[in-house]
Amino acid sequence: MNIGKRHWVIAEGYLPEPGPRADDRTLRSHETACILNASDQAAHIELTLYFADREPVGPYRLQVPARRTLHLRFDDLAQPAPVPRETDYASLFVSDVPVVIQHTRLDARAGDLALLSTMAFGGDA
Amino acid sequence: MNIGKRHWVIAEGYLPEPGPRADDRTLRSHETACILNASDQAAHIELTLYFADREPVGPYRLQVPARRTLHLRFDDLAQPAPVPRETDYASLFVSDVPVVIQHTRLDARAGDLALLSTMAFGGDA
Amino acid sequence: MNIGKRHWVIAEGYLPEPGPRADDRTLRSHETACILNASDQAAHIELTLYFADREPVGPYRLQVPARRTLHLRFDDLAQPAPVPRETDYASLFVSDVPVVIQHTRLDARAGDLALLSTMAFGGDA
Amino acid sequence: MNIGKRHWVIAEGYLPEPGPRADDRTLRSHETACILNASDQAAHIELTLYFADREPVGPYRLQVPARRTLHLRFDDLAQPAPVPRETDYASLFVSDVPVVIQHTRLDARAGDLALLSTMAFGGDA
Repeated sequence: MNIGKRHWVIAEGYLPEPGPRADDRTLRSHETACILNASDQAAHIELTLYFADREPVGPYRLQVPARRTLHLRFDDLAQPAPVPRETDYASLFVSDVPVVIQHTRLDARAGDLALLSTMAFGGDA
Repeated sequence: MNIGKRHWVIAEGYLPEPGPRADDRTLRSHETACILNASDQAAHIELTLYFADREPVGPYRLQVPARRTLHLRFDDLAQPAPVPRETDYASLFVSDVPVVIQHTRLDARAGDLALLSTMAFGGDA
Repeated sequence: MNIGKRHWVIAEGYLPEPGPRADDRTLRSHETACILNASDQAAHIELTLYFADREPVGPYRLQVPARRTLHLRFDDLAQPAPVPRETDYASLFVSDVPVVIQHTRLDARAGDLALLSTMAFGGDA
Repeated sequence: MNIGKRHWVIAEGYLPEPGPRADDRTLRSHETACILNASDQAAHIELTLYFADREPVGPYRLQVPARRTLHLRFDDLAQPAPVPRETDYASLFVSDVPVVIQHTRLDARAGDLALLSTMAFGGDA
């Protein structure tokens, strides 16, 4: 099954402050790009981050094995640079095999939890 | 009306811990795949679950009658295996007639409710 | 500007109980189909509701004037029948001119607010 | 990379009352259109707002430089008119180069935070 697209955009990006449960990895504020590679080949993905007022940063290099999902946390990114908190950004993913990408944010800064999610925008251009 | 696609992906999947209202089916944490079959034929659907670090599990076999909706709860899945909680996964649905699938999560682990939803990614490839 | 599609599906539908602020129209639990008709002709739309275990109900007849948006609340629907609360449903919209439809739910049953939204699934088939 | 569409619609639009943290720009109720221009040309965008019961307002003129993201807050719009609060609206964006647009609302009126997001509906017609 080779479902998906090779180019994906998440136009919204914002890492809120971690909130009162900052020591709990699952409950502190974070954003995730959930990637499914349903194909029988490993997917090699280059991720570029865009900002409001400076040149893009990247590529970040990811690999998703065949028949696997990677739920990539943006606060885990390190090379070439970590993602700054409380800063507007956007993401572009370029993969060598078709994948599907969905975006999620958990916002815990007010103490309670708020969630958002959307399928990213896919293209093959 | 034969609207929809035959292949659908939900790249995000995560069943949080049930939360303080675990005995209330509607208020404990859960994820749902809402499927509409607006056609005049029953839809036979095979669902495969993908994980980060092991081979896919499935197929789960679903049927949605003609002109019906099925709001499938992932925590109801049993055969061939229940969906593990607090584990990243993703889903691929393959149907023999066009359907439309939307994804929803209710997260109750912090006591309050948080919701997310997105249309799944559809294809016919 | 004639942007949009003529057929739209919202596969998720569920009106939770109204919650503690049931007398405030904006803060009680509700679902909305937000429709934009950016064209220069009135849009005549037929809405059909699908259920898990009975025949569809409809059509509900809506009109959206040229260059207007209608944020249709499902709990305002009356003819041919109101939408039952705490019941799984799905919706199909058929319009005579292209429109764009986005789905929103406000869930107030736990006292706090939770929101979800997604663009509906559009087609022209 | 020239990914995206030139026409985008957000059918849902509603600015709730600001809520108890109205003096904190990031925590008062707001809506955002997150725009990514991944191309090497500046994007000139005309935004028109549609309402339920009056003629559209616009165009609002935006510019997103090459390789930049703009997270446009609707409560920052001023010319030709600010966006009224507690009023249903919808938005149409027309760009001269392909962009990607995602919609987000933070709703703080009840004291806690609720979030929604969806990719906008893109077309090239």
